[in-house]
Amino acid sequence: MLSKEARDRFVVVLVRARNPSNIGAVARAMHDFGFRHLRVVNEFEVPFEAAKSAVDASAVLEAAQVFGGVAEAVADCSLVIGTTAVGERVLVHPLLPLPDSAAAMIQHLAHDMEGESSRVALLFGSEKTGLSNEELSYCHSLLTIPMEEQADLRHPSMNLGQAVAVCLYELIRQGGIAMPVTLPRGSSPAGAAEVERMVVLLDDVLERAGYKRHHPANSGQDMVRRLVLRMGLAEADVPVWMGMLRQLLWSLTQR
Amino acid sequence: MLSKEARDRFVVVLVRARNPSNIGAVARAMHDFGFRHLRVVNEFEVPFEAAKSAVDASAVLEAAQVFGGVAEAVADCSLVIGTTAVGERVLVHPLLPLPDSAAAMIQHLAHDMEGESSRVALLFGSEKTGLSNEELSYCHSLLTIPMEEQADLRHPSMNLGQAVAVCLYELIRQGGIAMPVTLPRGSSPAGAAEVERMVVLLDDVLERAGYKRHHPANSGQDMVRRLVLRMGLAEADVPVWMGMLRQLLWSLTQR
Repeated sequence: MLSKEARDRFVVVLVRARNPSNIGAVARAMHDFGFRHLRVVNEFEVPFEAAKSAVDASAVLEAAQVFGGVAEAVADCSLVIGTTAVGERVLVHPLLPLPDSAAAMIQHLAHDMEGESSRVALLFGSEKTGLSNEELSYCHSLLTIPMEEQADLRHPSMNLGQAVAVCLYELIRQGGIAMPVTLPRGSSPAGAAEVERMVVLLDDVLERAGYKRHHPANSGQDMVRRLVLRMGLAEADVPVWMGMLRQLLWSLTQR
Repeated sequence: MLSKEARDRFVVVLVRARNPSNIGAVARAMHDFGFRHLRVVNEFEVPFEAAKSAVDASAVLEAAQVFGGVAEAVADCSLVIGTTAVGERVLVHPLLPLPDSAAAMIQHLAHDMEGESSRVALLFGSEKTGLSNEELSYCHSLLTIPMEEQADLRHPSMNLGQAVAVCLYELIRQGGIAMPVTLPRGSSPAGAAEVERMVVLLDDVLERAGYKRHHPANSGQDMVRRLVLRMGLAEADVPVWMGMLRQLLWSLTQR
């Protein structure tokens, strides 16, 4: 379970992000998944200031911190993971697919360490060039999002906002916010007795309609039962079906 | 395993998407994860035409089809799943978190059914209002992305492009493209013999440096060995460390 405290030790670091709307999209994804700490490494403050003034600027964006370099941005982090597109460069780091990297980050965040040193940073490079070798040298390992190998390489890496959303989703999925399957009232599966009542009624309808006489091979009651079971009937739907079948039966006996 | 053929039976349907750049972002995410079939349900063709003329319009966008209504857009699909933000409306459909919905879709896609009837459609509503009750009535079940319950509800649902990216990632993750952990050459763990050589050398260095005399309690060879083991040494790093230690030793004996 990734607690709120654990998520608050997780830091997204955008390095040389150029497009203000991408920075805004990242902040929004963080907000959606309950992460708060955004750090921006930019030589020039222009894109960050533009993002902050956008209409949908969130609390995440307002609280974001600007750093002059990666070293300063990750100084209080004990696990630093960089993101990269596969095949982008010669590997000098371990490269793990997102699910494995997320597991490592969660394990690290779950450690009940003292103070700030238990922070985890996830680095995203600029939209055009990714992370430089110097920037990657601060990383313990690299993360890549499993993608289709593209015949054309026009998009060697994902859109920045989407990449962040996918990474945070994976943290939440593994870590994460418990969320049980919710079924509407009455959609629990029908009991065997109800199913059997429906089988008997359908069988009767098929008999009256002459179906069983014309198709003796595939209209035995066993076959009808398997047919009804395969419907995966919800409890709430049984009265509806029974009403229909009764109406059919009544109609057939009137002829 | 979600084959290319299976992915080609998967259809993303955008219903009343208003923002052309969102439609473009969806097409890009589909391209990244290797999905091809985008359908757009729009009363007015304006946003779709604007998206198609955007600079980064992909092959997915160029091949997208426009439909006048949801019924037509999903006519050849045998499993239709709608996306919704939690608590958006009264539930009349089963609501499954994304991982469960993705499993159901993959199971359906994996069926080696004949012809077009095995298609699966995933519906996304407009950015403002989501899917209407009429549009939801075509769905077998609903999918929701597990998110943080927000104190402020300014963003009741995710950004459209991010939501599609997260859903497709989950399909690929579960279905998906095999992607092993890749380690750089030489990063396999160092063998015990190499570790031991390093322990002995470090021990010698500590002795020569006078460290063991000053800290007898925590400089026994066992302690040094545990220290080195905790480094999790990679094979390729051993010669580097050994070289450093030898240099230290030489330097210490010169005094």
